[in-house]
Amino acid sequence: MQLRVPGPTPCPPQALEAQGKEMINHRGEEFRKLILDITWSLKQMFQTQDDVLILTASGTGGLEAAIVNTLSPGDKVLALSIGAFGDRFSDIAHNFGAEVEKLDFEWGRAAHPEVVEKRLKDDSRIKAVMVTHNETSTGVTNDLEAISRVAKEYDKLLLVDAVSSLSCIDLPVDLWGCDVVVTASQKGWMSPPGLAMVSISERGWKAVSEAQMPRYYWDLSRARSFLEKGQTPWTPAISTLYALYSTLKLMEGEGLANIIKRHVRVGDRARMRIEELGLSLFPKEAYSNTVTAVNIPSDVDSRKLLTTMRRKYNIVLAGGQQRLSGKIFRIGHMGWVGEEDIDQIIVALKKALPESKR
Amino acid sequence: MQLRVPGPTPCPPQALEAQGKEMINHRGEEFRKLILDITWSLKQMFQTQDDVLILTASGTGGLEAAIVNTLSPGDKVLALSIGAFGDRFSDIAHNFGAEVEKLDFEWGRAAHPEVVEKRLKDDSRIKAVMVTHNETSTGVTNDLEAISRVAKEYDKLLLVDAVSSLSCIDLPVDLWGCDVVVTASQKGWMSPPGLAMVSISERGWKAVSEAQMPRYYWDLSRARSFLEKGQTPWTPAISTLYALYSTLKLMEGEGLANIIKRHVRVGDRARMRIEELGLSLFPKEAYSNTVTAVNIPSDVDSRKLLTTMRRKYNIVLAGGQQRLSGKIFRIGHMGWVGEEDIDQIIVALKKALPESKR
Repeated sequence: MQLRVPGPTPCPPQALEAQGKEMINHRGEEFRKLILDITWSLKQMFQTQDDVLILTASGTGGLEAAIVNTLSPGDKVLALSIGAFGDRFSDIAHNFGAEVEKLDFEWGRAAHPEVVEKRLKDDSRIKAVMVTHNETSTGVTNDLEAISRVAKEYDKLLLVDAVSSLSCIDLPVDLWGCDVVVTASQKGWMSPPGLAMVSISERGWKAVSEAQMPRYYWDLSRARSFLEKGQTPWTPAISTLYALYSTLKLMEGEGLANIIKRHVRVGDRARMRIEELGLSLFPKEAYSNTVTAVNIPSDVDSRKLLTTMRRKYNIVLAGGQQRLSGKIFRIGHMGWVGEEDIDQIIVALKKALPESKR
Repeated sequence: MQLRVPGPTPCPPQALEAQGKEMINHRGEEFRKLILDITWSLKQMFQTQDDVLILTASGTGGLEAAIVNTLSPGDKVLALSIGAFGDRFSDIAHNFGAEVEKLDFEWGRAAHPEVVEKRLKDDSRIKAVMVTHNETSTGVTNDLEAISRVAKEYDKLLLVDAVSSLSCIDLPVDLWGCDVVVTASQKGWMSPPGLAMVSISERGWKAVSEAQMPRYYWDLSRARSFLEKGQTPWTPAISTLYALYSTLKLMEGEGLANIIKRHVRVGDRARMRIEELGLSLFPKEAYSNTVTAVNIPSDVDSRKLLTTMRRKYNIVLAGGQQRLSGKIFRIGHMGWVGEEDIDQIIVALKKALPESKR
């Protein structure tokens, strides 16, 4: 079975095997070495000299941590949304009492930095900008570099959902001045789900020291002080850390620059070959190199297509979410993936499409 | 290496092997079957007909979920504490704005139901009682049956930290009327850390419908509605679920009643053999059957003892936490453990103690 949803992604055998190791004491020396090694490697991949902390949670937990550690109820935030995950990030901030101004862009398009700039110029009350780097629901990658530049120009805190981009799409955290950046183990990191990884800048820590939203499990200050001892505040997902350690070694072997280039090649190939099939891409611009969203032809039944792909051709693709349900399908291509995987999917799609007519 | 800290506990080979299975789509049919099967099995072990929900988190995340789903800021709660984990449960409620009345009992003793009753009788403002079933830091098990009876008599919500008891020590959730009960995969469940499991009663759901504490990741209502589709709201720790599925099968094979009896035998043996060595137990009453806390003789160096046990005899024990640091050591004996494991530890302790003089 080839799993090509936009997460969880397939784990290489090394990661699956690494999980077979017996548990260790999370307050002991062996664990200390493990978490410090992983943290060091993560910092290279985040391209940051600042802190990276590991939480036992899904990516959504990491997003909640980014918010509750840096904001207070009543703080005004500008939440850019270009799809379901932008909506989610915004919803979390709203749930915890932030005054959220949501800046929605058409699904299938990227956020426009000039619109962001106008809002920041017009409203000095805005404390933070929240943005999804790569929107999995629509297959669009925001121009985070440009958005970061604007946020920094207006001296705003910048919270980034990089769950489905980091380690696949270039994101130099320090260079772009991203204050809090969140990713998760089951995406480009080729590990099982269960860990969220969060970087935080000096400015981010300053916000933490003032932030009044209630927090305990997600407390990043506590995570930092435990990390100094080579520990986590709460019992961590040890076997997932074993897997992540092994995939980080693979990633270091390939090199971040090469990984990013491979994702460009894979993304290009997916788009080219999808269009060769006579299908059209859902995004109108800013195509993602980790997930390709494809319009379902009007004579094809979406459910039948996904079922045929899975049952007959052993390839698991994703459907559309929310308002895109039944209208698009999505190919995840992040992490452990090459151009040959795309070719296999195309061969299968070519057969499955005519077999999935309404 | 024999890992005998009070969690993480050793995983049987079946659990480690189960984790080697490749990832699956968490929105697909195979996952649906997995989570529904696991949930069904968990309900047997919780002895409940009500809901059991699985969160991707450590046990502490489950405790936070219990609080933020059922309480509002300003709600008065009576938090019983007999050690570090009782303190933690209380701290979380405080952080989220509950008015916490903390009822501290001497470390090494259990909570006294008659003291609880007096407080409930005297203060009708108390909405909920929070209690740790088994206090890992001191090796004491509270008389949850008696505490439940009092809480129910006064019609209070009862939130239970059963992280280190459930599946080892009898806890008939429905019979005792426990409204929210939290446990975690790396304890008696013999799986790696990364999953918290939370049961919730009808009365618990009523509290959820009124509770105003902010929540998103921990939202149990959302977890319930996704579970109806055989899903979780956020990407779950799939490999840890594979492990848990396999250990639940082992547990069903042995039978809950037998598992509980085995823990009684193991606990009895640990206490008897520790006292035979001339050591004294830290608790003064209500000895736990999942963790034994032992006073360190005045002529023994605690750090030297733990290091000798680990390096020379390949057995990892735990030290004391917080105020008990350096004063006690703890033997975890929950989950995958038998009397022969205790005997091995005793043989090693007999040698290590004279080798660890101050």
